[in-house]
Amino acid sequence: MIQQVRIGLLTVSDRASRGEYEDLGGPAMKAWFEKALTNKWEAVPRLVPDEQAQVEAALIELADKEKCCLIVTTGGTGPALRDITPEATKAVCQKILDGFGEQMRAVSLQYVPTAILSRQIAGIRGQSLIINLPGKPSAIDDCLNAVFPAVPYCIDLIEGPYLESDESVIKAFRPKHAKKPETK
Amino acid sequence: MIQQVRIGLLTVSDRASRGEYEDLGGPAMKAWFEKALTNKWEAVPRLVPDEQAQVEAALIELADKEKCCLIVTTGGTGPALRDITPEATKAVCQKILDGFGEQMRAVSLQYVPTAILSRQIAGIRGQSLIINLPGKPSAIDDCLNAVFPAVPYCIDLIEGPYLESDESVIKAFRPKHAKKPETK
Amino acid sequence: MIQQVRIGLLTVSDRASRGEYEDLGGPAMKAWFEKALTNKWEAVPRLVPDEQAQVEAALIELADKEKCCLIVTTGGTGPALRDITPEATKAVCQKILDGFGEQMRAVSLQYVPTAILSRQIAGIRGQSLIINLPGKPSAIDDCLNAVFPAVPYCIDLIEGPYLESDESVIKAFRPKHAKKPETK
Repeated sequence: MIQQVRIGLLTVSDRASRGEYEDLGGPAMKAWFEKALTNKWEAVPRLVPDEQAQVEAALIELADKEKCCLIVTTGGTGPALRDITPEATKAVCQKILDGFGEQMRAVSLQYVPTAILSRQIAGIRGQSLIINLPGKPSAIDDCLNAVFPAVPYCIDLIEGPYLESDESVIKAFRPKHAKKPETK
Repeated sequence: MIQQVRIGLLTVSDRASRGEYEDLGGPAMKAWFEKALTNKWEAVPRLVPDEQAQVEAALIELADKEKCCLIVTTGGTGPALRDITPEATKAVCQKILDGFGEQMRAVSLQYVPTAILSRQIAGIRGQSLIINLPGKPSAIDDCLNAVFPAVPYCIDLIEGPYLESDESVIKAFRPKHAKKPETK
Repeated sequence: MIQQVRIGLLTVSDRASRGEYEDLGGPAMKAWFEKALTNKWEAVPRLVPDEQAQVEAALIELADKEKCCLIVTTGGTGPALRDITPEATKAVCQKILDGFGEQMRAVSLQYVPTAILSRQIAGIRGQSLIINLPGKPSAIDDCLNAVFPAVPYCIDLIEGPYLESDESVIKAFRPKHAKKPETK
């Protein structure tokens, strides 16, 4: 079975959603996957303000209706009052994968001690993996470089499409017993 | 007071519980403690499918009725739909000890980038410490080697028996003020 | 706008609250901030037993009534039955910042393998950052040295006063775009 690869790119920002500020996070996430993936894939971009109900609704739509196997968010993961992306993510996921947040913070700590302020999480909703990324484009790249090697196998385990990467950019890891499904 | 040392060994696996697959995780956990502990101890093995109610019931029985001071589980900690061991563990524990999961993932990350997919946790139910371990025997050893040095003192703190290890295999750590209780 | 810098110092200890034991944690936290901060600041000390309702009430009073921008606790973060400081902290916070606990455990692991037994957390209640520290004075210093570099910027983000440190003791980190507010 070949399945379409659709990736949700959700920017969470009051200012960008009001047009006061250019959305830099969304395009940065898209550019990273354009370099990394060798699959044919389709970006499903969304932009919402830092309102928990709207972030939840966008995540649910990207997962359930748009059938994105992977949804990445940018923005809204800090300690400020309006930062609610992790709360919205947790609310729509069945499982939280603590290892993603731990590793993204560990990697970011190599650059800035304020990495511990990030509340980024990742989780599973149905057949979608949702990952919170930072707001800053360079930090988005650092975090995707850190966690992506585990993403294709995670999507295999939730019965999504078989993701393949350009190994000169980033190498996906699968255990030896994990096999590529045959094309029908 | 001398207390019996009983250790619960819980294998969580649909296939092993149907007999389609040999349980390798349970024996691997038992073999590790046979090498590591110098106490006289008794293994209390259990095998259940990946059903949350059955995992919870087994954990409660091992803790409350079988009086195991330590319960280790194998299997069911990944992101797949049927993986529910951490949910069952959390549901029966009064306290969660995040440091165990963090350290097991950090150690496993030295071997495979997919370590971040593991949702292993540990927690306390009454006078029992419950630790989720991976399914793969070699990964069980890596995780026990990583966290066991803290286990005997943890069991002291929850008023369980005084565990002692073969220091040529693994060294338990206790702060200087922690003393071995006198034998009556 | 200049705002007062008030720091809550909460000792959680059954024995110290009964006077059976000198409170060493409270003075150790105070001494650390006396060395580190160059702001004029005021300590707001409290001492309560390991009772969740009393810890919660003290945290709420320090945050909401005493207007402490930072509240540090000492004691009650282990796995023992009476250790309930993290539960009380979680109950009064709107947001939990997992990176603090992760980093404090990672740093403590360099000294003792039992660091994984610590359940220390940090979180935000309104305009107060609450951080659980260990009970032992030397471990208090290790943890504050590890996390303080991120604390002033965190307090900026929750609209608290602008903290400044003696850089020969410890250096606070703020991103380049973060500016010191002008004095009125």
